[in-house]
Amino acid sequence: MFTYCVRSALSGRLCVLNTSRCRRPFSASSSEDLDQVRTLLQLCVDRQYVSPGPANTELFQRGMSCSYGPLGMELRRNLLEQWWHSVTRSTAQVLGINTLNSSTVSETDGQERLRIVESGSLKQILGEQELSKEQLIKRLNMLLQRSPSVRGNLLQGALEQFVPLWGLVNKKLPFGLAETGLCFLASDGSGCPAEVMQTSLAWFCSPRTSSQWLDHWTRQRLKWWRKFALSPSDFSSSDVPEEELEEVASRGVRITYSFPWGPEPLETLLSRGSTELLNTHKGAHSKPLVRDGRKSVPHVVSVTGNMDRGVMAYLSNSLQQLKKEDSKQKLHQRKVLKLHPVLAPVKVALDIGRGGTMELRQVCEGLLQEMMEAEISVWPGYLNTLPTSMEQLNAKYDEMGVLFTVVISENTLESGLLQVRRRDTTIKETMHISEIKNFLSRYISAADNV
Amino acid sequence: MFTYCVRSALSGRLCVLNTSRCRRPFSASSSEDLDQVRTLLQLCVDRQYVSPGPANTELFQRGMSCSYGPLGMELRRNLLEQWWHSVTRSTAQVLGINTLNSSTVSETDGQERLRIVESGSLKQILGEQELSKEQLIKRLNMLLQRSPSVRGNLLQGALEQFVPLWGLVNKKLPFGLAETGLCFLASDGSGCPAEVMQTSLAWFCSPRTSSQWLDHWTRQRLKWWRKFALSPSDFSSSDVPEEELEEVASRGVRITYSFPWGPEPLETLLSRGSTELLNTHKGAHSKPLVRDGRKSVPHVVSVTGNMDRGVMAYLSNSLQQLKKEDSKQKLHQRKVLKLHPVLAPVKVALDIGRGGTMELRQVCEGLLQEMMEAEISVWPGYLNTLPTSMEQLNAKYDEMGVLFTVVISENTLESGLLQVRRRDTTIKETMHISEIKNFLSRYISAADNV
Repeated sequence: MFTYCVRSALSGRLCVLNTSRCRRPFSASSSEDLDQVRTLLQLCVDRQYVSPGPANTELFQRGMSCSYGPLGMELRRNLLEQWWHSVTRSTAQVLGINTLNSSTVSETDGQERLRIVESGSLKQILGEQELSKEQLIKRLNMLLQRSPSVRGNLLQGALEQFVPLWGLVNKKLPFGLAETGLCFLASDGSGCPAEVMQTSLAWFCSPRTSSQWLDHWTRQRLKWWRKFALSPSDFSSSDVPEEELEEVASRGVRITYSFPWGPEPLETLLSRGSTELLNTHKGAHSKPLVRDGRKSVPHVVSVTGNMDRGVMAYLSNSLQQLKKEDSKQKLHQRKVLKLHPVLAPVKVALDIGRGGTMELRQVCEGLLQEMMEAEISVWPGYLNTLPTSMEQLNAKYDEMGVLFTVVISENTLESGLLQVRRRDTTIKETMHISEIKNFLSRYISAADNV
Repeated sequence: MFTYCVRSALSGRLCVLNTSRCRRPFSASSSEDLDQVRTLLQLCVDRQYVSPGPANTELFQRGMSCSYGPLGMELRRNLLEQWWHSVTRSTAQVLGINTLNSSTVSETDGQERLRIVESGSLKQILGEQELSKEQLIKRLNMLLQRSPSVRGNLLQGALEQFVPLWGLVNKKLPFGLAETGLCFLASDGSGCPAEVMQTSLAWFCSPRTSSQWLDHWTRQRLKWWRKFALSPSDFSSSDVPEEELEEVASRGVRITYSFPWGPEPLETLLSRGSTELLNTHKGAHSKPLVRDGRKSVPHVVSVTGNMDRGVMAYLSNSLQQLKKEDSKQKLHQRKVLKLHPVLAPVKVALDIGRGGTMELRQVCEGLLQEMMEAEISVWPGYLNTLPTSMEQLNAKYDEMGVLFTVVISENTLESGLLQVRRRDTTIKETMHISEIKNFLSRYISAADNV
């Protein structure tokens, strides 16, 4: 083992790392990696993926929900949409649900939960002078009892919904319940609970097939993560070591992403048996939990993802830094966010060439409207009236991960021709204005079907 | 004013109502209305819009988030999607954001908040024997201080994001920030905080235009709500009475839906001035809040919607009960959920006629896949192998609000023809299997563009 000391570029504090087991962010393994992380975070803030502020970027890097800017919001939205499609459209046996975040179920499993307390009620009790210490404690315990707890994962909700919905599919197996939503995680010592946008597939199957289904979903999920990656090998799967497995689980697999500071899990698949399903419905007879003429209760395979960390992984994966000469033969670092066309939050930027006039703006407005109607997300660059060179503009759009830049010029008014620049090749093409919308639609849907 | 007494069909308890100001659910104004509410709630549970259980249906009826079944989930998803498009695609000046639910900002505005407390930490303090009452209170106050509060609305997040994002659009006005997300509301005496899926548009404009913008957005929003309604006149707008206005607001409008028990607000528009924006950024100089060469800080018009109540409103609005004779000339009540094609959670059900064979199931599988790829949501009715008459099936799909029922029979294998039944007319048509997907796509997108 090798322990060394590095000044964190982000927090400015010294931290001593144990590299062999290092899983903390802010602890990159080399100064080059450190640079890479710093560059990425700066770019994410500059290009409206993540809202500014050190506390916010720290949340982002830790794989927690943070305050996202317009581009980060759209990227996470696209990612969630793709997850949803891949899970609910892969088979007719998956139903979507939407359960409550908070519940007033009492703590019977001995787990301490995060609870929503009305601070007014608590302060009121604390302010009652005449209460003895014992009375105070009793009152506070009662308040705590009645305060709803917030969820730490989506699985419990799916287990509760199992009985009515399994009936709906005539108690056929396998059968799945999918949900995405906000969860709250207890603090890891930092003293402050964190939010995570989770995805959950609860897959119910016969006991003898649960291990095969675990393998099936591992393959499916890994394939999915890699589909949108620039370098797919950074996404990998590995068995959860036995000592790290939850008690109920007999086997587990993690899909991880290799961040510059080490691997972090994106999605965890666990073969959990039937214990929790039985516990959840222990009030009921076992009949709703078995199929006619059979005795065994379905087993559960859970697939739990963290889409905030997913956003971080794809941003990290897609950032390319290239050396490039500019027109004055000065060497520049060109940064391109090569996000997959399906995930890229902005598909096309609309700009005006030199000497933008009222007429050109009107052409842009029309084109903008047309794109919006076709559900192609557009960046209205033409609204920016500050003088910017085309080179600066392209550099900016590359950092935003914009797929195409369309430039409308005086020439467009005469001939209907406009210039289209591709992010991935930097090649510029000329196209007729009437073709651009269909060209973009085709490009995006082709990328989706690869 | 007229006061009378009615036994609530849902809670079984007696309640005395003041009809002129009645805003509570469970207090319908006539027994016919009461029947209607009961029928609707039962249908929503039976047809997987809402999960079963009296506590859950009560949340649903109160316009709060509840546990939704697969159809309810899809309906709310469609509604949120439509809201998002209507607000972000209406103009290029609206940016989407995603802010955190919880924050550790201290309570400076004197408002009591809901706070997330780690019950373990609280119990630990309560269990420390050696603490005096004063020490106990001090420790608890410290815990409360450090516990993050959860949001009751999305506006604060937008106000915080204003400065960096306004810069992005070169400080042009008007300019808007849109967000949708879960919020927690303090209890209204019931002792338990509730969740709501809110939508929020924070619209920033010059002080002299804020009143016009309030009117503009009122028109837009009312038009939007009515677009998807079966009887649009149930949706209306009215000024918020001065005594009910929040302190910061100079004027407000509510868009309400007339439920059987009285009107309830779906979306509230408030002209709020600049006080909150200034307070949020009081640490900063006023420079980031003004445009070059001007003095006035932008005014804020807030548009806040409750999409859980929106779901309830559209379900209530779209339920039609029709008297109908069946084949044995017995009079039946036919219930149809005439949800707008864009909102309907299931667009088409796929079924097999009498004597379903393996071959017919394979045809269904192929068609299912084709529809899923075209993003048309399908109900795989053919998986249900229990014997059901076509009449029962149609009744079920009408209650689910399914737009079309496609029946594949032996005849389809020979001629390629299948039968399509329309929910709204009950008319059956014959169509070739190769045409059905395009027919449905065209129908849905035509309904979207009306």
